[in-house]
Amino acid sequence: MEREIVPTETKLAWLRRLIASGVGTVQVGSFVHPVKVPQMADTDRLFAALAASGERPAGVTLSALVLNEKGLERALASGADLICAGVSASETHSVKNTGMGIAEATERIIAIARRALAAGKRVQLSVQSAFGCGYEGRVPPERVIAIAGRYVEAGIRHISLADTAGHATPAHVEALFGALRALDPQIETACHFHNTYGMGLANACAALRAGVTSFESSVAGLGGCPFTKIAGGNVCTEDLVHMFRGMGMCGGIDLGALVAVATDIAKFFNREMPGTVYRTGTIGAYAD
Amino acid sequence: MEREIVPTETKLAWLRRLIASGVGTVQVGSFVHPVKVPQMADTDRLFAALAASGERPAGVTLSALVLNEKGLERALASGADLICAGVSASETHSVKNTGMGIAEATERIIAIARRALAAGKRVQLSVQSAFGCGYEGRVPPERVIAIAGRYVEAGIRHISLADTAGHATPAHVEALFGALRALDPQIETACHFHNTYGMGLANACAALRAGVTSFESSVAGLGGCPFTKIAGGNVCTEDLVHMFRGMGMCGGIDLGALVAVATDIAKFFNREMPGTVYRTGTIGAYAD
Repeated sequence: MEREIVPTETKLAWLRRLIASGVGTVQVGSFVHPVKVPQMADTDRLFAALAASGERPAGVTLSALVLNEKGLERALASGADLICAGVSASETHSVKNTGMGIAEATERIIAIARRALAAGKRVQLSVQSAFGCGYEGRVPPERVIAIAGRYVEAGIRHISLADTAGHATPAHVEALFGALRALDPQIETACHFHNTYGMGLANACAALRAGVTSFESSVAGLGGCPFTKIAGGNVCTEDLVHMFRGMGMCGGIDLGALVAVATDIAKFFNREMPGTVYRTGTIGAYAD
Repeated sequence: MEREIVPTETKLAWLRRLIASGVGTVQVGSFVHPVKVPQMADTDRLFAALAASGERPAGVTLSALVLNEKGLERALASGADLICAGVSASETHSVKNTGMGIAEATERIIAIARRALAAGKRVQLSVQSAFGCGYEGRVPPERVIAIAGRYVEAGIRHISLADTAGHATPAHVEALFGALRALDPQIETACHFHNTYGMGLANACAALRAGVTSFESSVAGLGGCPFTKIAGGNVCTEDLVHMFRGMGMCGGIDLGALVAVATDIAKFFNREMPGTVYRTGTIGAYAD
């Protein structure tokens, strides 16, 4: 969403600090058309630089977002560990985002996922706009579960439900992840919330209750989708880790390092970012 | 917390719209020393104007916050339906706020509560800094429950746990309200969260899960305690109602009216307020 292009070296500095912070996965970038999303034009170079530096700690997964076959080719060449792709459960959002309706987009993304699996990559597929859509409003849960069912049939076990528009409520989150697990208890679930209406952390807690173990978030609360109607930032990484540390989790993550990156990101963009704790400071007992 | 004094007529206009919005209780103001908190110097006049206007809808409770005996006298004379008072569970916060330690402050507030009950008023007592303190850090749950136990012994059945410093996490909220209800299942519990670290809505959801039915909040996210260390605003009323409406509750509250008041408050102070949905707009399906 940011208009000001972040130089590759600056991104690399932030990425290296996030990779060293103890989080499980860092999404390095998207392989999207460089004209459509100029901010992501250097994703190949970022992966190359990280691979060359040889300083990657064991156990960290580097992921890439892929939208189409061309992106997959680039991702396969990049050395990404995990390839993420998805389909919107909103017909309108799907057409605006991809030029395809849900049915066509689902089959195409499954074909991409199969190619990635065949190439030895880990794959996570998401259902975007899973909780509501700025264009269509309510998104029926059956439609979300039908897409996820196609993923499962295709052998995908890592599935993320993404609240692209920020419409999810905690009750909705518990119900939809419950339905996803009922579909197949073997699914490894991930959640992806935007804080557009302030419900991001509440929804993350609801996802935790529903057994979700993977939480997608964005340092400083950066982000948003350029192809959705009202795009608030993703739930903020350091705010999420701060809350979870207060609940006795995330002990292996260096919260201070995350806050320091968020602070530098705010300095770079020279404005207040959506994140909270980089401004207020952390609660001592949660940060130690 | 606001330095700019809001004129009495402006407060009255906001109060009348909040009173008409369908919320259960509106706290009109605090009876505090006019020199210490000049913003609250007109609380007597606000109650008098509201009583005189005769336009108060049936079923709305008007409450007042009272800190000491002098405040109680004013509250009893004001026509407030509900008198709120409290004790901090942080020794440091208690001394800074009242000049008394917890034990002395508890006995004094119970004496005030008894006088209010004897005068035919409803009374709610709170435990402030119940989840943590900017000065002391962790606040032991046993200390909070001991104060609440004294309230129950004194015949008080409306008890609020207040997260004055914003330290609560959802897990902490569920545990502490669970302990409060274990003390006496007849207690009518209220929660009071500050959004200092962004966890306000998540904590409200946790309180809902724990059986809490009364949610204290502040339109536009105004507020904060002038006598605490880092004072973020209260959880925002219209954001809270928006989330709860998305979960099928609060159908009797006019969300649009709350958003309109928040918008006017932001215009009055001529800055961005902590609330979210007055800026982003509400989700259509939640607002209708």
